[in-house]
Amino acid sequence: MPSLEQLGERAAIRSLVRVLEPAPGLGIGDDCAVLPWGSRYLLLTTDVLNAQTHFPEGTRPFEMGWHAVAVSLSDLAAMGGEPLGVVVAESLPRTTSHGFLRALTRGMNACARAFGTHIVGGDTKEAAAVSLAGTALGWVPRCELLTRRGARAGDLVAVTGRLGGAALGLRSIQHGLGLRPAEARWRRPTPRLREGRMLARSSLVTSCLDLSDGLSSGLHELCRWSKVGMAVDEARLPIFPALRRASLSSRERRALLLHGGQDYELLVTLRSKASSALHRLARQLRPTPLTVVGKVQVGGGPLVVRHGRAEALPDAGYEHFRG
Amino acid sequence: MPSLEQLGERAAIRSLVRVLEPAPGLGIGDDCAVLPWGSRYLLLTTDVLNAQTHFPEGTRPFEMGWHAVAVSLSDLAAMGGEPLGVVVAESLPRTTSHGFLRALTRGMNACARAFGTHIVGGDTKEAAAVSLAGTALGWVPRCELLTRRGARAGDLVAVTGRLGGAALGLRSIQHGLGLRPAEARWRRPTPRLREGRMLARSSLVTSCLDLSDGLSSGLHELCRWSKVGMAVDEARLPIFPALRRASLSSRERRALLLHGGQDYELLVTLRSKASSALHRLARQLRPTPLTVVGKVQVGGGPLVVRHGRAEALPDAGYEHFRG
Repeated sequence: MPSLEQLGERAAIRSLVRVLEPAPGLGIGDDCAVLPWGSRYLLLTTDVLNAQTHFPEGTRPFEMGWHAVAVSLSDLAAMGGEPLGVVVAESLPRTTSHGFLRALTRGMNACARAFGTHIVGGDTKEAAAVSLAGTALGWVPRCELLTRRGARAGDLVAVTGRLGGAALGLRSIQHGLGLRPAEARWRRPTPRLREGRMLARSSLVTSCLDLSDGLSSGLHELCRWSKVGMAVDEARLPIFPALRRASLSSRERRALLLHGGQDYELLVTLRSKASSALHRLARQLRPTPLTVVGKVQVGGGPLVVRHGRAEALPDAGYEHFRG
Repeated sequence: MPSLEQLGERAAIRSLVRVLEPAPGLGIGDDCAVLPWGSRYLLLTTDVLNAQTHFPEGTRPFEMGWHAVAVSLSDLAAMGGEPLGVVVAESLPRTTSHGFLRALTRGMNACARAFGTHIVGGDTKEAAAVSLAGTALGWVPRCELLTRRGARAGDLVAVTGRLGGAALGLRSIQHGLGLRPAEARWRRPTPRLREGRMLARSSLVTSCLDLSDGLSSGLHELCRWSKVGMAVDEARLPIFPALRRASLSSRERRALLLHGGQDYELLVTLRSKASSALHRLARQLRPTPLTVVGKVQVGGGPLVVRHGRAEALPDAGYEHFRG
């Protein structure tokens, strides 16, 4: 039987889902579990960050705590959810200092409070290495739930914020490039909860996910769930300012823009008919930009249009076990 | 600053709670986070199991999956909750086989289904060692919530099921003693969800927790939360049958009975006035026994009464980081 290294994360998850007996609701695989609850859905999502694979050498414990909370809140945002609370299960070596634990907890608390919610519980256990499993609970009115499925040919493809900043920041931290704004972007990811709620209320969104593993990976996911294609215009992609200016080859810059992970922006498809409603929505979202970057097509997966020529966009985002 | 090894798990958690800003609800430290939601409370609880500290060599992946779910469901049971769903965040080495992942998932699924709920989502990430963070969501009517606080002098102390079986089973697995019923008890913990619901509905319970770290540790917790003492009659403790028969010194047997962890039975205090209601409750709980083992006293922590003499019961349950 193959190892996870040979399977890769996505095939492993598909295999795992086949073993589970389906629950009432929308099934497994979207950003959150969706549990019917009267006129609302409860949303539940868990993410584990392991220091060895997720955090570069020298990451401060405050930032680790912030990440553990932000990543789960971002999953709520991707489904249009409002947070109710976050719990974090911490695995820590016994040599961990009390100061580390306090800074870690301050980071968790700061992120939760910055996005209108609380750390409501957790667990602390001994392990050989630091590992943080954050779980967020939220809710959304039934008629406002955003999912990965629902994009239709003719819809617009749009993205919040700017892309490539977190991946550039991580590279800067790892190689000591000193690119502070990009590093700050990596250090404190911003779950787009406010934006997710506004997108959900607009009734314009036909599908949505958060960009944790890069734009190309996100486009592939949306195409797969909705069984559509998408053509994205590279010139229209909202590039993170420091990435535009960074002294990189154009190939490197392009790789970070198209495939760099951990921006946690929302990638959405929007009904194209209502351009005045779309302008209103973009105004509401300010100061976060909402940029239309392409169109949904009948099929064939994601394409990127560059100097007027369309080419297939490979799914080159980060994948665990293959990494 | 001290390390977690010097602080111990409980002091570490107390320190961590002081850093967090309090959320609306009941505060942190009970078995679950309690979130007001109309006429109900939502209950959210997370527990992480690390293979190196939690599972002895040779534990089967099915059992690991079962444990990851059972432990969180047991926390719902301790508050009288009904489960809504479970998510599990898995950290796995890249050399993990596909067969291991499938068996792990089957164990998770089997435990959830055995207790009337589903695995509704999860996360799978790469790490150096196996770690499973299970999170259960549940609910309880507001008037039926069970908590650790509320025991009053004169209340009865009671426990579900039988004690010491899981700790004996773990010892049998570790030392190849071949005590199958005890091993089975360790391998597949039974969250007392049905019993928790019945206790909650009875209106007799004044405080409750689940015995994850042993009876002595549970008694200390209840005494601390309710600021009371408790006197437990050692002769009345419901000993796991195989523990009574095991060829152990009486000192070893007593240590497993009083301090052995992972039985996941419910320890409760009950209003003493209504003895007919208590008998009715005990009948409802069948085939799970409910045994009155002692009384709540004004103060002074837990005592154990043995051959007519009361002695202070040390808090000798398992504590992470000190282990």
